[in-house]
Amino acid sequence: MSEQLFSYSQLFDFTKTILHKIGCSENDSEIAARVLLSADLRGVDSHGVARLSGYVRLWEVKRINTNPLIKILHETPSTAVVDGDSGLGLVVAPYAMNVAIEKAKRVGTGWVSAQNSNHFGIAGYHAMMALEHDMIGIALTNASPLVAPTFSIERLLGTNPICVVIPAGEEPPFVGDMATTTAANGKLEILQRKNGVAPPGWIQNKQGRSSTNPHELKAGGALLPLGGDKEHGSHKGYILGSVVDIFSAILSGANYGPWVPPFPAYVPMPDEQPGKGIGHFFGAMRIDAFRPADEFKKHMDKWIRRFRSAKTVEDQPKVIIPGDPEREMESLRMNKGIPLLKPVIEDLKFLGEKFNIQFESK
Amino acid sequence: MSEQLFSYSQLFDFTKTILHKIGCSENDSEIAARVLLSADLRGVDSHGVARLSGYVRLWEVKRINTNPLIKILHETPSTAVVDGDSGLGLVVAPYAMNVAIEKAKRVGTGWVSAQNSNHFGIAGYHAMMALEHDMIGIALTNASPLVAPTFSIERLLGTNPICVVIPAGEEPPFVGDMATTTAANGKLEILQRKNGVAPPGWIQNKQGRSSTNPHELKAGGALLPLGGDKEHGSHKGYILGSVVDIFSAILSGANYGPWVPPFPAYVPMPDEQPGKGIGHFFGAMRIDAFRPADEFKKHMDKWIRRFRSAKTVEDQPKVIIPGDPEREMESLRMNKGIPLLKPVIEDLKFLGEKFNIQFESK
Repeated sequence: MSEQLFSYSQLFDFTKTILHKIGCSENDSEIAARVLLSADLRGVDSHGVARLSGYVRLWEVKRINTNPLIKILHETPSTAVVDGDSGLGLVVAPYAMNVAIEKAKRVGTGWVSAQNSNHFGIAGYHAMMALEHDMIGIALTNASPLVAPTFSIERLLGTNPICVVIPAGEEPPFVGDMATTTAANGKLEILQRKNGVAPPGWIQNKQGRSSTNPHELKAGGALLPLGGDKEHGSHKGYILGSVVDIFSAILSGANYGPWVPPFPAYVPMPDEQPGKGIGHFFGAMRIDAFRPADEFKKHMDKWIRRFRSAKTVEDQPKVIIPGDPEREMESLRMNKGIPLLKPVIEDLKFLGEKFNIQFESK
Repeated sequence: MSEQLFSYSQLFDFTKTILHKIGCSENDSEIAARVLLSADLRGVDSHGVARLSGYVRLWEVKRINTNPLIKILHETPSTAVVDGDSGLGLVVAPYAMNVAIEKAKRVGTGWVSAQNSNHFGIAGYHAMMALEHDMIGIALTNASPLVAPTFSIERLLGTNPICVVIPAGEEPPFVGDMATTTAANGKLEILQRKNGVAPPGWIQNKQGRSSTNPHELKAGGALLPLGGDKEHGSHKGYILGSVVDIFSAILSGANYGPWVPPFPAYVPMPDEQPGKGIGHFFGAMRIDAFRPADEFKKHMDKWIRRFRSAKTVEDQPKVIIPGDPEREMESLRMNKGIPLLKPVIEDLKFLGEKFNIQFESK
């Protein structure tokens, strides 16, 4: 499919301007644009500017408040619950992560569960905020139900990602950012566009049988928890997705399980709302709350180097450290530009026309 | 294979007496016996009395100190590093989990990384200690290297389990306890005894090729991270196992990766020791550090009931909540007795003779 390259700064400025036009403050527009674009830079194309028009449509149906009063509802020295006031998750999440970081500065760790939020972009951006403070960062979020637990025919969980970021010394940080499904929805979308074949274990059809047709998801099928089926450990993916749901939403008072609001504005809201909006969970742990940071980093470097130099299977690539591919992609795209597919470009042009802002293909 | 039933109290008393004979205090013997037997009760037979003689052999080769001075090396209001002084993990772990719980009482959460420890039995026992305090409990541990990261031919990680325990109200708690591999080593041992066939995705042979022969693990092969191969998300199992390793050992100062000491006393120690013993990580989060516990539990009950009543795939069992099968097993075995295989009975008899304690088959 044909692609065209755009510079980071062009996409950043366009995104920021659109967000400002729909009522976000100067500061919020800038934060949200930075979070959104970090997905494009890191190669997670499904979570970047391709979603901008989706956020705008949520604002149009009054499901996103672009001028939220984000606040702490309850706290202890190491915990807080944040109310996102229906704001963009792209803004609520950095606020909540900062609360976690401030708590970690004072008592060693900080843990924040957020309610009344919306889609927060990529988990990696928020967790990586911990790095500059020599902290481990954690970010989780629930999401609208696309995943069938082991043996279920119903979709009860989102792709509920887990991100854990760990600083190193001379080596780059460990950035583990993963959906708790066998394959992220973005990978399935790529197959849908290409009419490709999905490997067994990614999805089931509406009867709950394993399928390789990526379009089954839109015909009542479901994504499968990491593992695929019981014999291959799908009950473990189900455990992980459930923990993310509970930490993000039941601790905070957000919606959970099948009641999480959908991202597409045209999909009707679930008939019941046991909580408010969607939920996230953030953690920050100061390294030196455990041992001196330089000692820790020296051992992280040793760990990383040992894994990177592992003897590999013939014909297979080298062992990589979580975060390696995204970091390389970021460096490449910052220099060479970010490729967008034609439908995404059309979508952004249309959005620009609506708000009287030029979106120019160079 | 022939089995015989033994009562909980008989196995508990025998275990406690043996541990006392090798020098554990009265109190430590009781704690360790309770932890070990909880595995037998919950149906995790690979981690119960079947391992007792293994712990004794570690003591014989002076790798376990039965009279340890377990202490806090460093702490902040919400964190601590515990030195297990080469004690039984069965004793070090409850000590460390109690430190986490006490910290959570004061500042909302407590997080403890432990070094210089040994095999701690089942993670579930330790994490479940949080329940009576209306806390979420977390227990992780690293273990000797049996697992090859994605693309690796070398074993660099243990089966590194993750356990998360979450209290509910009228419903029983959520107890997610999982190895970060496709299948736990105990499941492979069952296949080895039966000369069975392992499903693809569980193991690879020494060339790094997928294998269904469960004996390959003893011939230079490796267990595979949850997911099995890259196409099915094994890089995610690799992320999870790595996070467990780093939280348990690099935060605490224990050995990590390929340098984790082996459980069998006859296996030589790795040639290098970047830390001390093996490492664990524990967390305790007070529910009411986020929201009132009764509110939380009401929503957990709703969550659990919704998932339990999910429409299921034809011919498949009902959707279960993590912890259901182990709880049912515990109740059954407490009443009817714990079945032991003939080789385990022989092993315990031999152990009894060595210490002049009768191990009687009823």
